[in-house]
Amino acid sequence: MKKSIFAGVACLVVSFAASAFQAPQAEFSEQQLKEVKALRDNALQSDLAWQLVESLTTEVGPRMAGSPADKLAVAWAKKQFKELGFDKVWAEPATFPKWQRYSESASIVGPAPQPLHITALGSSISTPKSGIEAEVIEFETIQELEDAPANIADGKIVFINYRMNRDRDGNGYGPAVQARNRGAVEASKKGAIGYVMRSVSTGHHRFAHTGGSHYQDGVKPIPTAALSNPDADQLQRLVALGKPVTINLNIQAESMGQGTSYNVIGEITGSESPEQYVLIGGHLDSWDLGTGALDDGAGVALTMAAAKLVADQSRPKRSIRVVLFAAEELGLYGAKAYVKANKDKVANIVAAAESDFGADKIWAIESNVHSSALPVVRAIAKQLEPLNVEYVRKNAARSGPDLIPFKPFNIPAFQLAQDGTDYFNYHHTADDTLDKIDPVQLKQNVATYAVFAYMAANAKTRMIGKAKK
Amino acid sequence: MKKSIFAGVACLVVSFAASAFQAPQAEFSEQQLKEVKALRDNALQSDLAWQLVESLTTEVGPRMAGSPADKLAVAWAKKQFKELGFDKVWAEPATFPKWQRYSESASIVGPAPQPLHITALGSSISTPKSGIEAEVIEFETIQELEDAPANIADGKIVFINYRMNRDRDGNGYGPAVQARNRGAVEASKKGAIGYVMRSVSTGHHRFAHTGGSHYQDGVKPIPTAALSNPDADQLQRLVALGKPVTINLNIQAESMGQGTSYNVIGEITGSESPEQYVLIGGHLDSWDLGTGALDDGAGVALTMAAAKLVADQSRPKRSIRVVLFAAEELGLYGAKAYVKANKDKVANIVAAAESDFGADKIWAIESNVHSSALPVVRAIAKQLEPLNVEYVRKNAARSGPDLIPFKPFNIPAFQLAQDGTDYFNYHHTADDTLDKIDPVQLKQNVATYAVFAYMAANAKTRMIGKAKK
Repeated sequence: MKKSIFAGVACLVVSFAASAFQAPQAEFSEQQLKEVKALRDNALQSDLAWQLVESLTTEVGPRMAGSPADKLAVAWAKKQFKELGFDKVWAEPATFPKWQRYSESASIVGPAPQPLHITALGSSISTPKSGIEAEVIEFETIQELEDAPANIADGKIVFINYRMNRDRDGNGYGPAVQARNRGAVEASKKGAIGYVMRSVSTGHHRFAHTGGSHYQDGVKPIPTAALSNPDADQLQRLVALGKPVTINLNIQAESMGQGTSYNVIGEITGSESPEQYVLIGGHLDSWDLGTGALDDGAGVALTMAAAKLVADQSRPKRSIRVVLFAAEELGLYGAKAYVKANKDKVANIVAAAESDFGADKIWAIESNVHSSALPVVRAIAKQLEPLNVEYVRKNAARSGPDLIPFKPFNIPAFQLAQDGTDYFNYHHTADDTLDKIDPVQLKQNVATYAVFAYMAANAKTRMIGKAKK
Repeated sequence: MKKSIFAGVACLVVSFAASAFQAPQAEFSEQQLKEVKALRDNALQSDLAWQLVESLTTEVGPRMAGSPADKLAVAWAKKQFKELGFDKVWAEPATFPKWQRYSESASIVGPAPQPLHITALGSSISTPKSGIEAEVIEFETIQELEDAPANIADGKIVFINYRMNRDRDGNGYGPAVQARNRGAVEASKKGAIGYVMRSVSTGHHRFAHTGGSHYQDGVKPIPTAALSNPDADQLQRLVALGKPVTINLNIQAESMGQGTSYNVIGEITGSESPEQYVLIGGHLDSWDLGTGALDDGAGVALTMAAAKLVADQSRPKRSIRVVLFAAEELGLYGAKAYVKANKDKVANIVAAAESDFGADKIWAIESNVHSSALPVVRAIAKQLEPLNVEYVRKNAARSGPDLIPFKPFNIPAFQLAQDGTDYFNYHHTADDTLDKIDPVQLKQNVATYAVFAYMAANAKTRMIGKAKK
């Protein structure tokens, strides 16, 4: 499989090398630029994205991959695409390891009995019905745990107390998420019978943040959970008092083998080069705790609305595909399936952007494209200026998580960067609900995506990705 | 009982009538005003209140009246008063109807199955183990419910969807709390089998706010709960879609007869008129969901700290009593017991203020005293100006809830008004935790109470309450 992927990439580079480094040309006609302005203005007036995310989060609600609501979400998406008049609407299967949460609770047993607010991390095993009870051993970082002597946590519950940094671009997430991804493995290696961590969170409310976690072959799996920030503070204070702190952790959950869900795809078919397409989208699944408004109902709604508004303006030269990925939260399974199922057509992508970072204002556009495409990028960025979108001239964008499986294809990828300052207050919590979306900012998001999709689909130059080095 | 109370009041008025309406006099010496300044400055530097509230909320945690932690809280308070060097420390019993929450959950059964975040209201009866399941009938206000035809809610679950207003002085609470106090009674009268309400809340997070509620003799009690604001929004949207909305409500709770707890009292004994005293304090109990940091760990800590700081400065002429009331949340039972047990000494109160409104900055002082005391009030207000405390010249203060049972005695009462803009985001929720207290504002609170207590205890004029009309 991998071999054929790289062959495809090489082929792409060769076939477009000739168009690279040409002299600047007018990428858009005056008429097209008038349409861009009209599109932008219309998008800023449109309630469509709000209506869509309101409907998804209310009438479907939480939609964990593999759950009954996930099926409803797939049906919802197909119905919406059709009602919005997309030219083609279809679904493509994706499989994933299904997991279900039943219940979760924790408490401090001593020295000061009181409940703790936790949530099981994805794929956690269950505890016995009565929970596990053990002394807590605290580490500041996963590194401190890894560097500790073997057996240091024998029979204990490891607590990693790392606090995520807040930043507009979410750069605190990567370092913090280590403790979620593999904390239970490292704790188990040191003899622990359970694992809890300070949530990957910038919030100061009593919500624990769930998220993917992984076990490792050959390392005994142990129950794994996240504490809300106030609860992690409390545990930290109690541990600091110097007496042993014992907690009870009770998780009831189940891994249920392979599940199946569907990427749902709606296409506005291009008039001149329909096989070439702009790919925008979000992921249709959500975690089970909230209603998945920010993550990622917003991305679903705003990309659907953007494509619809482009189609209302005029039929684009190239196609626009809105891909609503399945089972992102469990490990990008929908995106992997898309790449696998469409590997011959991935090279036809002329621009890709996934919205999976909430719906606060888009403050920047950054590309990750072949230099030959930069004149188009500059033209797009210019049309985004009235929306207060900055052009980050680094051409090294990291894009949404569902575009990671596309990387071997070197597609021309973009980041239309939402302000993430508050995103990790809500991410993967029960508190990710519709009221966390600002309808005004959502319109700005739609306008940005609409301008982007229109221009990428209509530019004279067909954008391509960076050459493989 | 009531007769003797009024006799006491009449006596008080007579005995101090002579001192009313005297010409202004210098209430404080230069030396005393220097001490006030030193006290104010010291209080703004002191971490004592923070240490106390940190200890109470961490080492005791939630402390529902009648719970094991409530006993710990009583022991904690006595120990702290003694360690702080209060001259007298004692406890006085109070009884109350004990109630305990075991579990609570709710979900939308149809048309869009999903969990709802709720909390049982205090004194709610249990549902059957499998919950109750019924169609929701929505009312905007309790008035709309009361005005509706008999039997309109037959077999249904009533939902009152009243949203509390946000305001610095908390004036939205009174109107909103009607639906909590007697919503279940009014719903039952119309045939409902269950009652849910939008929380008395200004928050936009997914916390339900508990609080006291009451049944009525002759009206069948029904299970009663509050929804978080986002969940009430969700229910509102689903009802608005026009199809019947069915929910399941499951509450397991128990009324357990009479409980006993204790008002814990610490006194700094006055040097000249020890029988006269300034009463400050808060309530020691909390609801069970959070750790009772804002409600009312802050009030406990800041009044203890203020009195201690006054004592460190110099022994006051009159006594200062810090009263930590028991079982406030269940209906002011500690305060009622205090008044009953101390009815001969309540007339000795020269100034009273309870802090039970969080710990955001105190923005105003208002009195409710006999006109003869206003020169003292003005002198106090002047010394609070450097703390940015405004003097509200209306002399009609409403004071803290635990002072309500003192009203028949017409004590000289004060409101040292915390800014309550955010208070009802957290009030009675699991999210009322230590991190919600701003240590800097807490110091300003301590300084305000310390200046108030010092000056009321040392003023030339012994303040008295308004004459009974």
